[in-house]
Amino acid sequence: MDYLEDLLSEQIPTSEETEKLGEISSAIIREINDICRANNINASCTEVGSVSKNTNLKSSDIDIFITFDKAYPVDYIEKKGLEIGHRVLKNGTEKYAEHPYVSGYVKGIKVDIVPAFKINNGEKIVSTVDRTPLHTLYVNSNTNEAMIHDIRLLKVFMKRINVYGSEIARSGFSGYLCELLIIHFKNFDRLMKHMANLRGKLIVPEDAEDKFAEPVIIIDPVDPSRNAGAAVSEENLSRLKLASKIYISGRLDILNHTPSVNRERGTHIRVFVIKKPDIIDDIIYPQAVRLKNRIWDILHNNGFMPVASEIYMGNDIEILIECKLEKLPGTKVHMGPPVESNESIRFIDMWNGNPRLMRGPYILKNRVYVDVRTEQRDMEGIIRKELRNSDIGKNLNEFRDEIKIINGEDADLEVVRKFFSKYLFN
Amino acid sequence: MDYLEDLLSEQIPTSEETEKLGEISSAIIREINDICRANNINASCTEVGSVSKNTNLKSSDIDIFITFDKAYPVDYIEKKGLEIGHRVLKNGTEKYAEHPYVSGYVKGIKVDIVPAFKINNGEKIVSTVDRTPLHTLYVNSNTNEAMIHDIRLLKVFMKRINVYGSEIARSGFSGYLCELLIIHFKNFDRLMKHMANLRGKLIVPEDAEDKFAEPVIIIDPVDPSRNAGAAVSEENLSRLKLASKIYISGRLDILNHTPSVNRERGTHIRVFVIKKPDIIDDIIYPQAVRLKNRIWDILHNNGFMPVASEIYMGNDIEILIECKLEKLPGTKVHMGPPVESNESIRFIDMWNGNPRLMRGPYILKNRVYVDVRTEQRDMEGIIRKELRNSDIGKNLNEFRDEIKIINGEDADLEVVRKFFSKYLFN
Repeated sequence: MDYLEDLLSEQIPTSEETEKLGEISSAIIREINDICRANNINASCTEVGSVSKNTNLKSSDIDIFITFDKAYPVDYIEKKGLEIGHRVLKNGTEKYAEHPYVSGYVKGIKVDIVPAFKINNGEKIVSTVDRTPLHTLYVNSNTNEAMIHDIRLLKVFMKRINVYGSEIARSGFSGYLCELLIIHFKNFDRLMKHMANLRGKLIVPEDAEDKFAEPVIIIDPVDPSRNAGAAVSEENLSRLKLASKIYISGRLDILNHTPSVNRERGTHIRVFVIKKPDIIDDIIYPQAVRLKNRIWDILHNNGFMPVASEIYMGNDIEILIECKLEKLPGTKVHMGPPVESNESIRFIDMWNGNPRLMRGPYILKNRVYVDVRTEQRDMEGIIRKELRNSDIGKNLNEFRDEIKIINGEDADLEVVRKFFSKYLFN
Repeated sequence: MDYLEDLLSEQIPTSEETEKLGEISSAIIREINDICRANNINASCTEVGSVSKNTNLKSSDIDIFITFDKAYPVDYIEKKGLEIGHRVLKNGTEKYAEHPYVSGYVKGIKVDIVPAFKINNGEKIVSTVDRTPLHTLYVNSNTNEAMIHDIRLLKVFMKRINVYGSEIARSGFSGYLCELLIIHFKNFDRLMKHMANLRGKLIVPEDAEDKFAEPVIIIDPVDPSRNAGAAVSEENLSRLKLASKIYISGRLDILNHTPSVNRERGTHIRVFVIKKPDIIDDIIYPQAVRLKNRIWDILHNNGFMPVASEIYMGNDIEILIECKLEKLPGTKVHMGPPVESNESIRFIDMWNGNPRLMRGPYILKNRVYVDVRTEQRDMEGIIRKELRNSDIGKNLNEFRDEIKIINGEDADLEVVRKFFSKYLFN
């Protein structure tokens, strides 16, 4: 267990950092509140995010929300939000989540200034960010110092086992989920015990109605109709279960195994590389996954028998697929009509003397068949042909004809390294 | 249509042959009846089979039944049947069907003398051969000269399309089924029209209850609880349907297509050759088929992806199987326990450092997996290993360890020729 505390001690913010963060956010909040007052804007300013809850690890950002009265129209708060953001963050740039917002640096610390509507507990939200200040309130009123320690410990643990982060490519546990888990289970050890013995879905509270399809169901205390755990993948739930068993049984050595890498797999590996558009990963990643599935399906439907795959997003999107077959058989069985149909004689005539005919026609059960020559036997030709006219994703289509296909297990690519070093927690 | 009449004219017995057959059978019947009378055996002698019904083609056998009173025990009629058979057929040899019987030659004509119990229409039979004399009676009282012509035409047609014969390896239409079909449909052309338009099962009479599982249901007029068509395979029904369409549409040229043979299939063909025991084909053939299916299953379960097969019984049993894969991938995915089970950590420890480990352990959905090295990658080693301790058929087991495995599409074997010349009607 010292191992985790050691990890935590490396990542807990120093008192200097905490003090600096406090000074920066206080100054910003004061400035924004002054602006609103001076301009008769019915809004107030509040800090959200891990720093505001004291659950932050080292090098955290500051998140400042300007919460506007619900009477304002959306375009008003978006316009005013940007105006105020730019006034406060001189070199800020505009970004886009649910609303556009301004992101910049103050004394080396990243600060986001985000507009939202002010709502109270139980009120209907306008956009999902409106809930965030309520989350901060809830966590601050339900944690004590020991719990804050364990929330940070849980975050460190989740990072170590690669399940921390709600971005789509990760599909892990957000900071807020870590907070809810410690609040619910009181401390880290009780959570570990629960997870180590859990079968099936993670449902919090345990007696909540199992009305969500996702593997992790954590009812949001500020909105009981919402599953705060919806974004967590089944693999990441599995990783947390296994890691909890490892923790409970004192086998943290398993986390540090170096998996052996053997590249002589006696299979056929291809990497498909496509340019990554300059758009945030949460939008591109699902398209990349769909492209991977599309290529997998083409290979599967054509009989190459894909067995494993991997995806990596760096400067490019790299998709690796491993197949049992490199080249299709030269012959395939082609099913004709039932003998009793009116088409059967026409089918026989059609194949008579056809240069693609390899054998037959012949009868199996109640149908006529022929064996025909496979025209296109290699993987790359088939993939290029089938992708040519298909929609591979709104933002990827323009790069469709420039997909590079790279051969083999020795290619110098991140996705190849990721594939071969696949382990329990990556 | 002249084509079929031409075929028939070559196969219809000459008046000399008919006269000779009549003389031989009359003499035998007289002799057996005399023996029975002289020895106070309550039995009578009758001719059965196609010759007795005048539906025989050239070079047919003579079948003589001695029908004993039902009061006799089975071993009495078997003993007396053999005694009488040997007295009548001086150089006869004993064979075995439902009962032992004597088979021999008289003036170059093959004659079988078979014991049975005498039963009347509607009475319960003791053994299935007891029905045969009733079949002869039924056919003789329900046919005229035109129908006899068409029965012979149908037999010639069925022979031409390879669906004639009730032996198990053929699973075709017996002579008796040809007779029943012409009796029911009145003539050849009406049968053809019916078959050319038939969908699904052949059921005769058409309003018979569909209570049998087989694709051909022809109610035996001498025993309505019996399906006389039970032995016909679905393929042979399909062949008769297709051939009838061909006949009706005047396209008999299709029967004479010479299928092109292309041996460059880009696949992997193996022939398994095993000695054929000196036992009748009807007993060996089903064992050979089961062996073929067993080898297919082994190849399928191991991932060689069999796509086609053929079987041939000559002096040996030859089994051909065509696969997509010649050699298994060097790696296979090995599924471990669910992460939440008590076995998961043990599974991880077990594979840690194992020389067969190729990748992992890793997590997919709710389970732990490893990729492991495939120890045995070639077809022959796997087949030999899996067959070594398995039951491949009562009469084949003793030759199990001497199965020869022959490589390739160019082997000089009948089964290879049969495979490549596969056509609608073979």
